[in-house]
Amino acid sequence: MRDVLEAVADGEFSPAAAEARLSGYVTTAAGRFDAAREHRRGAPEGILAAGKTPAEVAALAAAALESTGRALVTRAGEDDVAAVAEIVDAEIDVAVDLDHDERARTLVARTDRFEPPSIDATVGVVTGGTADAAAAGEAKTVLDAMGATVERVDDVGVAHLGRVLDHLELLREADVLVVAAGREGALPTVVAGLVDTPVVGLPISTGYGHGGDGEAALAGLLQSCTVLSVVNVDAGFVAGTQAGLIARAIAAARE
Amino acid sequence: MRDVLEAVADGEFSPAAAEARLSGYVTTAAGRFDAAREHRRGAPEGILAAGKTPAEVAALAAAALESTGRALVTRAGEDDVAAVAEIVDAEIDVAVDLDHDERARTLVARTDRFEPPSIDATVGVVTGGTADAAAAGEAKTVLDAMGATVERVDDVGVAHLGRVLDHLELLREADVLVVAAGREGALPTVVAGLVDTPVVGLPISTGYGHGGDGEAALAGLLQSCTVLSVVNVDAGFVAGTQAGLIARAIAAARE
Amino acid sequence: MRDVLEAVADGEFSPAAAEARLSGYVTTAAGRFDAAREHRRGAPEGILAAGKTPAEVAALAAAALESTGRALVTRAGEDDVAAVAEIVDAEIDVAVDLDHDERARTLVARTDRFEPPSIDATVGVVTGGTADAAAAGEAKTVLDAMGATVERVDDVGVAHLGRVLDHLELLREADVLVVAAGREGALPTVVAGLVDTPVVGLPISTGYGHGGDGEAALAGLLQSCTVLSVVNVDAGFVAGTQAGLIARAIAAARE
Amino acid sequence: MRDVLEAVADGEFSPAAAEARLSGYVTTAAGRFDAAREHRRGAPEGILAAGKTPAEVAALAAAALESTGRALVTRAGEDDVAAVAEIVDAEIDVAVDLDHDERARTLVARTDRFEPPSIDATVGVVTGGTADAAAAGEAKTVLDAMGATVERVDDVGVAHLGRVLDHLELLREADVLVVAAGREGALPTVVAGLVDTPVVGLPISTGYGHGGDGEAALAGLLQSCTVLSVVNVDAGFVAGTQAGLIARAIAAARE
Amino acid sequence: MRDVLEAVADGEFSPAAAEARLSGYVTTAAGRFDAAREHRRGAPEGILAAGKTPAEVAALAAAALESTGRALVTRAGEDDVAAVAEIVDAEIDVAVDLDHDERARTLVARTDRFEPPSIDATVGVVTGGTADAAAAGEAKTVLDAMGATVERVDDVGVAHLGRVLDHLELLREADVLVVAAGREGALPTVVAGLVDTPVVGLPISTGYGHGGDGEAALAGLLQSCTVLSVVNVDAGFVAGTQAGLIARAIAAARE
Amino acid sequence: MRDVLEAVADGEFSPAAAEARLSGYVTTAAGRFDAAREHRRGAPEGILAAGKTPAEVAALAAAALESTGRALVTRAGEDDVAAVAEIVDAEIDVAVDLDHDERARTLVARTDRFEPPSIDATVGVVTGGTADAAAAGEAKTVLDAMGATVERVDDVGVAHLGRVLDHLELLREADVLVVAAGREGALPTVVAGLVDTPVVGLPISTGYGHGGDGEAALAGLLQSCTVLSVVNVDAGFVAGTQAGLIARAIAAARE
Amino acid sequence: MRDVLEAVADGEFSPAAAEARLSGYVTTAAGRFDAAREHRRGAPEGILAAGKTPAEVAALAAAALESTGRALVTRAGEDDVAAVAEIVDAEIDVAVDLDHDERARTLVARTDRFEPPSIDATVGVVTGGTADAAAAGEAKTVLDAMGATVERVDDVGVAHLGRVLDHLELLREADVLVVAAGREGALPTVVAGLVDTPVVGLPISTGYGHGGDGEAALAGLLQSCTVLSVVNVDAGFVAGTQAGLIARAIAAARE
Amino acid sequence: MRDVLEAVADGEFSPAAAEARLSGYVTTAAGRFDAAREHRRGAPEGILAAGKTPAEVAALAAAALESTGRALVTRAGEDDVAAVAEIVDAEIDVAVDLDHDERARTLVARTDRFEPPSIDATVGVVTGGTADAAAAGEAKTVLDAMGATVERVDDVGVAHLGRVLDHLELLREADVLVVAAGREGALPTVVAGLVDTPVVGLPISTGYGHGGDGEAALAGLLQSCTVLSVVNVDAGFVAGTQAGLIARAIAAARE
Repeated sequence: MRDVLEAVADGEFSPAAAEARLSGYVTTAAGRFDAAREHRRGAPEGILAAGKTPAEVAALAAAALESTGRALVTRAGEDDVAAVAEIVDAEIDVAVDLDHDERARTLVARTDRFEPPSIDATVGVVTGGTADAAAAGEAKTVLDAMGATVERVDDVGVAHLGRVLDHLELLREADVLVVAAGREGALPTVVAGLVDTPVVGLPISTGYGHGGDGEAALAGLLQSCTVLSVVNVDAGFVAGTQAGLIARAIAAARE
Repeated sequence: MRDVLEAVADGEFSPAAAEARLSGYVTTAAGRFDAAREHRRGAPEGILAAGKTPAEVAALAAAALESTGRALVTRAGEDDVAAVAEIVDAEIDVAVDLDHDERARTLVARTDRFEPPSIDATVGVVTGGTADAAAAGEAKTVLDAMGATVERVDDVGVAHLGRVLDHLELLREADVLVVAAGREGALPTVVAGLVDTPVVGLPISTGYGHGGDGEAALAGLLQSCTVLSVVNVDAGFVAGTQAGLIARAIAAARE
Repeated sequence: MRDVLEAVADGEFSPAAAEARLSGYVTTAAGRFDAAREHRRGAPEGILAAGKTPAEVAALAAAALESTGRALVTRAGEDDVAAVAEIVDAEIDVAVDLDHDERARTLVARTDRFEPPSIDATVGVVTGGTADAAAAGEAKTVLDAMGATVERVDDVGVAHLGRVLDHLELLREADVLVVAAGREGALPTVVAGLVDTPVVGLPISTGYGHGGDGEAALAGLLQSCTVLSVVNVDAGFVAGTQAGLIARAIAAARE
Repeated sequence: MRDVLEAVADGEFSPAAAEARLSGYVTTAAGRFDAAREHRRGAPEGILAAGKTPAEVAALAAAALESTGRALVTRAGEDDVAAVAEIVDAEIDVAVDLDHDERARTLVARTDRFEPPSIDATVGVVTGGTADAAAAGEAKTVLDAMGATVERVDDVGVAHLGRVLDHLELLREADVLVVAAGREGALPTVVAGLVDTPVVGLPISTGYGHGGDGEAALAGLLQSCTVLSVVNVDAGFVAGTQAGLIARAIAAARE
Repeated sequence: MRDVLEAVADGEFSPAAAEARLSGYVTTAAGRFDAAREHRRGAPEGILAAGKTPAEVAALAAAALESTGRALVTRAGEDDVAAVAEIVDAEIDVAVDLDHDERARTLVARTDRFEPPSIDATVGVVTGGTADAAAAGEAKTVLDAMGATVERVDDVGVAHLGRVLDHLELLREADVLVVAAGREGALPTVVAGLVDTPVVGLPISTGYGHGGDGEAALAGLLQSCTVLSVVNVDAGFVAGTQAGLIARAIAAARE
Repeated sequence: MRDVLEAVADGEFSPAAAEARLSGYVTTAAGRFDAAREHRRGAPEGILAAGKTPAEVAALAAAALESTGRALVTRAGEDDVAAVAEIVDAEIDVAVDLDHDERARTLVARTDRFEPPSIDATVGVVTGGTADAAAAGEAKTVLDAMGATVERVDDVGVAHLGRVLDHLELLREADVLVVAAGREGALPTVVAGLVDTPVVGLPISTGYGHGGDGEAALAGLLQSCTVLSVVNVDAGFVAGTQAGLIARAIAAARE
Repeated sequence: MRDVLEAVADGEFSPAAAEARLSGYVTTAAGRFDAAREHRRGAPEGILAAGKTPAEVAALAAAALESTGRALVTRAGEDDVAAVAEIVDAEIDVAVDLDHDERARTLVARTDRFEPPSIDATVGVVTGGTADAAAAGEAKTVLDAMGATVERVDDVGVAHLGRVLDHLELLREADVLVVAAGREGALPTVVAGLVDTPVVGLPISTGYGHGGDGEAALAGLLQSCTVLSVVNVDAGFVAGTQAGLIARAIAAARE
Repeated sequence: MRDVLEAVADGEFSPAAAEARLSGYVTTAAGRFDAAREHRRGAPEGILAAGKTPAEVAALAAAALESTGRALVTRAGEDDVAAVAEIVDAEIDVAVDLDHDERARTLVARTDRFEPPSIDATVGVVTGGTADAAAAGEAKTVLDAMGATVERVDDVGVAHLGRVLDHLELLREADVLVVAAGREGALPTVVAGLVDTPVVGLPISTGYGHGGDGEAALAGLLQSCTVLSVVNVDAGFVAGTQAGLIARAIAAARE
């Protein structure tokens, strides 16, 4: 502890970094940032912009940058991206790289001192239709941040079985698969029946009428006659992180 | 009307048959039997035993036999079958053939004067697993009663795609398909993506936990990314009759 | 395959048409268009605009036009129609006819080389009230595209039985019926009790309070004491296509 | 109050009758009987046997007999009937008439001093099928107890419109109608579209699968495109009493 | 029929009025208006503006004015009111009185030849809170149109029992009561326990969280331990009409 | 820790009591008993018999007796009571008093060395009807075990307001109230509008049809227009313990 | 009563204050204000702005100020705040202090004669994340108004247990706790397992997909394996008032 | 193929084994056994006894034994176990070892030639309470069958945090965790916040009232503020197999 406090005194550590080191989290007006999560959980904490003001998102992103060198924001609107850019300009005194994926609605900020992790494992991210792109993109963003290799296989819905069978080899070679599907959610079941890889099913809130908003897809994945596990509707960040934790364990065993 | 009343006077028509001829239904203590349905709808009325006492089932079956020469009972338990057998012995004075399918829980009674219809069309009845047998059997019973040719393709669930692909030719040759499926209900979607035949999806109340009791299957069929129409959970009689009406229209066009 | 590649080399086939011919689908930035569906399923693939950007809708419509000579868009807003018109101008080098039905929210584009199919069968499309017009119009659009004769019978809700009884003859003469109904959804049951034609029930998301959003109508159709099959709430495209597949089978038998 | 206490002292009033007169209810070990309800509400309190032990049912029935001269038990099983018969023998010292309707599962007990009310109004009780008999019988029992004239019209479901149209005159002549219906619950809507009488819709817990247990019927009645009011699923006692209150108001106006 | 056609020829009857007289409904581009409903049902048909365009509302209102001399629009926005005013100016050649209640969102149009009905009966319309005003106003509008006397008792929620007890006499003197309530919906139960008048419960879509949107109130009314009947959430028009039909039957008996 | 181990060596402490003292829980084959709960939470842990075998219930009860001198079992059937009696005879070597409330389905066992706590505060336990007795009895059992004074006010449902107003003084004098109610759950709202005491609402699984199984009561309590907090349906043990914790805090402040 | 009327005559009492004194409520065009609630219930009535127009909110606030010297508005938008400020300027002739908390969306108005209550008790208000701030702020506002001491512990969600364990002492020292939580709602259970204080759980409408809108949190709190009571989703005012009533009872016992 | 047929001719292969080798499944009267699943998926197919007759279970088990040397039955009752034992005696001519876990309701049959797989990885199976034992046992059975090392940590529910913190080291050392929890389902969230291992959450159908039958636990796991994936309620077999697939991938990487 003495070391940390001396580093603060020397200006080597920001107070945020020091608090993170000592208690595991950073307290801001907008909430506490769980700076120890990556160390404890092996995956970065995401800042869910939905339900927060841009100012709150920016304050938490700054705390993340100061304490861990990186910030990962999901469901980020244009306002959120602008607020983070502004606070980075104003308050962070090292160079920061901002990476905004509009379709996935994610923002990744990294200081130039940040050393990205790398995992020797491949995760396949599969979608059934055009409307699954946002959640699948969220999964890809967090997998990139965790250092895994990501392979996308898009728009291979079961209405035309040929589309998925054409990509079977790629699906079989991945270490773990995230398979997204809206409507009736049959794709993860069909894929999981064809491979011996762990499959994380990601139901998507497409569809209308009865079972819309992803409820039919979720129920279908939970009832799947093959073996897979599931995350909540549109929870691309969770699906990606879970696949990343599995990939990380496999990569660790490879070493 | 005079003819009918004279036929009753002559003992040629039972009062039940006469009432059926004149008003379209037969009134019994257990309810009114819709004797004109077959003429009006092209499909026999079924007597749903569930929710009725064996005595009520038997009374309605007797009215059906007297007015139309045939009775079709669904969800029939042993008690219902016994009660029908007893009333046939006691009250029907022509020979009656009883056909009881234990697995489908159906009972078909026919007087020896009854001339069964015949339809020049084939209906495929497809199941995904062992537990779909009862509802599929109900569909087969009513299709047999309507005179269609029935082809069964059993236990071809999508967990192993090979099972359904092995029967593709037979699926493509049928005039109309009833496809049953419980759990996540992916089979009708996969089948309907492979054929140009009308598909009637029949969700089955297998499965447990969230989406159990056939609700996941029903929602999945309603959300199907291919084209099919649906009946209620376990409604084998309805699926079969609907497929039979389609087959009947095709057969009529063939003449 | 050699033929196809040579046709591409000769400029007779676009690369899109060639891919469609060889693998059954066309890959675009906005997703894969299932170009083989009409051949495989006997009904055109629809492009559901809801949940896609106008640019994605236009890209898929262009792929459809290039590979099959026709594009059918449902739930199309003004933006989608404009985007399709623009891409047709810019990228399609044959004359294209655009047919936009505002009330049904459908758009059909056809190149002048496209030869529309024709089916010798009649489908009745019946509504219970003014608010059912959009979904019924969607059904009519796809039935027109499949070449069936469509008869509309509008606003014959059961609150006044006379309205439906006045059209009984027309209902009985159709080969197959699509019957739409919102609120309590009684109309398809009443109609199906009067005719021997197959009826596809189409629940509509009118109504408010408990059972609103079409849920009461859907549940009522599934519980119908007559025989009919059902599609999801507001699924006019599915109801129309299913009726079209039945009409097509009847027409084929007529030949 | 003095009068009441003196009547107790003279043995003219039982303590139960006196408590009922003074505070409006009778306290027993099994609960409080609302003896003033008939005076206050114009309709007798029913003792719902479901959820009570036979001993509790009997104790409340005895309190009802002692304080009002009559007891009305609904959802009564054989055990409940036996327990009431026993307590009547043991504790009630005037002659009591017991009237048990097995199908309706109701029991009405009356002392020989009880003077039944009479209402100059007619209530029609209409059912769609055999399975509606229990709830309709419950409605009839309470209407009889209130003194109304009851007309039953049974098994006139809308699958065959002729059945209901054949009874139109009787439906139009009633002062108020209770219309029961299970499955999709279309009958009350059809009836209410044909008459200018107030209709109380009574959904029944028939049906299976999605919308079973009377939920489709209830939702359909609440969404009815005609005008009617509704009671809970299988609530025959409530429907009958509500119709009885309306009939009673009409009869009072006739005087 | 000859009379009607001659009256059309003489310009005494509009074609709309003649169609209404002959077939019971008027066909417009916006749907069919059930002109015979008031005669058949004893209550005017309402035109529900929600889900219709202002032009459709206006067309139906004009048909109603032409065939019955009156139009009653519910859930009417400013656009709907303007469209009706415009069509009245343009197409109706007798003087028309427009009565728009902003809070209730109702519009009543009457030609100066229209003779309003009158009923010798009183209906109490009771609310539990400020937010119940719109639905209660809808009930009052239709009751006024049916000619009943309406007594309003507002904002007497059960959180302070004194408020409702202070108005007990008025509640007891009405011939029938409409009692609205949102949140937990306890008011109709409390009122129905205090009076011997028929009570129609009207659940209101106030409340938030679990059981919000009026679902808790509806469920509570259906489970009421007193006797009442219920309409759908916010269905003020239905509650008012049902109460009006009861009041009309009482008034008829008074004559 | 040394003390505890020496006490075990001396036979003064059972191993179970020692484990409880050292780690806060006792490990048995049937699970871990949270022996420290009473110390940590101020309320005894209850053993929920539902979902456990009688042998598991008995093993946990023995662990509770050994480590804390008391065991409190809820939802106890006859088999559970017998199994506890047997294990007490066989394995507990001090005298144990067993108190079984059949109606509440609770069992309390106490060694003769156990010194029951006492709280200087009164909790009112109020029910709306006979069917609320089991859950209210569960609440009373745990309140007795916590040492509070319990006042029961039974069967004061709002269908007859007089019943609850007659007991107003007693309700106002309690320190905290548990108010149970099934069906529409109006009683806790009415009571909470009349007193300034904290009210814990306890919904009961009476009622049938829509909103049955206590769901209407729960939703109604959550939507209450007065102030109260709620526990789950039939959770008499939780309601009682929560009221006991409040009473305990008040009593502590009194000292 | 004479006293009150004389005070009105003397101008000492406004008519509103006099009506409040005599009948317990004040009648305005916008509804009745329950002026006696604070006296009767020990907590001020809140004016829920949601579902009311700004004019209605202002009218009720003025009635509250005139009759009780204070008004407390929840879910207040900018329009509501402006309307109250305007009516205070125009109609209230004593000085009024307005306190608007934007995040909590509450407004408290107090005349300068108003003497705020004070309670000798502490309530902890705990949140799991940034998004719980609005409801927690609502709870704090009403607790402040009741005169309790409030301790906030923010953003201590269970994803990082250290955050909550770091504040254990403060949690244990409070007299009563309000614990808010969205998503899976685990925080109140974890907190209630660590303290012997009564805990009121406050579920928050964060979260998305299945169980979103606070439904998962509510269900989790109702199923909690520890002891706590619950209010509806986002019902910060109710949670705060309930905790305030408990705190008030404890403080009264302290005197 | 010739090889296989020759092996059949030589009696080396049973016809079942040959069919399995050639088409991947074995056809029996009771359905088709997916004999290739273990090869294709890396995990054995389970025979779900629920919904099948004992005879059907036995027929499928025999097919499994003949084609793969092992059968794994879940949700097996005593009847199922007896039927398998009988068919093994009668039809399988090599020695078979039967392993029946009564609590987990699983049955594993192995011929003496069967060589069990072994995986160099550890899976922790964690439960929150006694009632989670059956599903956790099902997970353990399939993990044993896949050859993984299984560590059980039982009854560490969050009501007493000490119980789970005491086992933290073991939780952190496992390669993957299955964490079961009923009621509010907080345990998997708390565990997943403490470790960097992939966690598969297994909701259990304990609990009563609102959110009972495992629905609260499932919704809570889907909403978890940490990262985990989920299987359906009570789906111990699926959770175990999914964990086994992950463990198998890690073990493969270790080689």
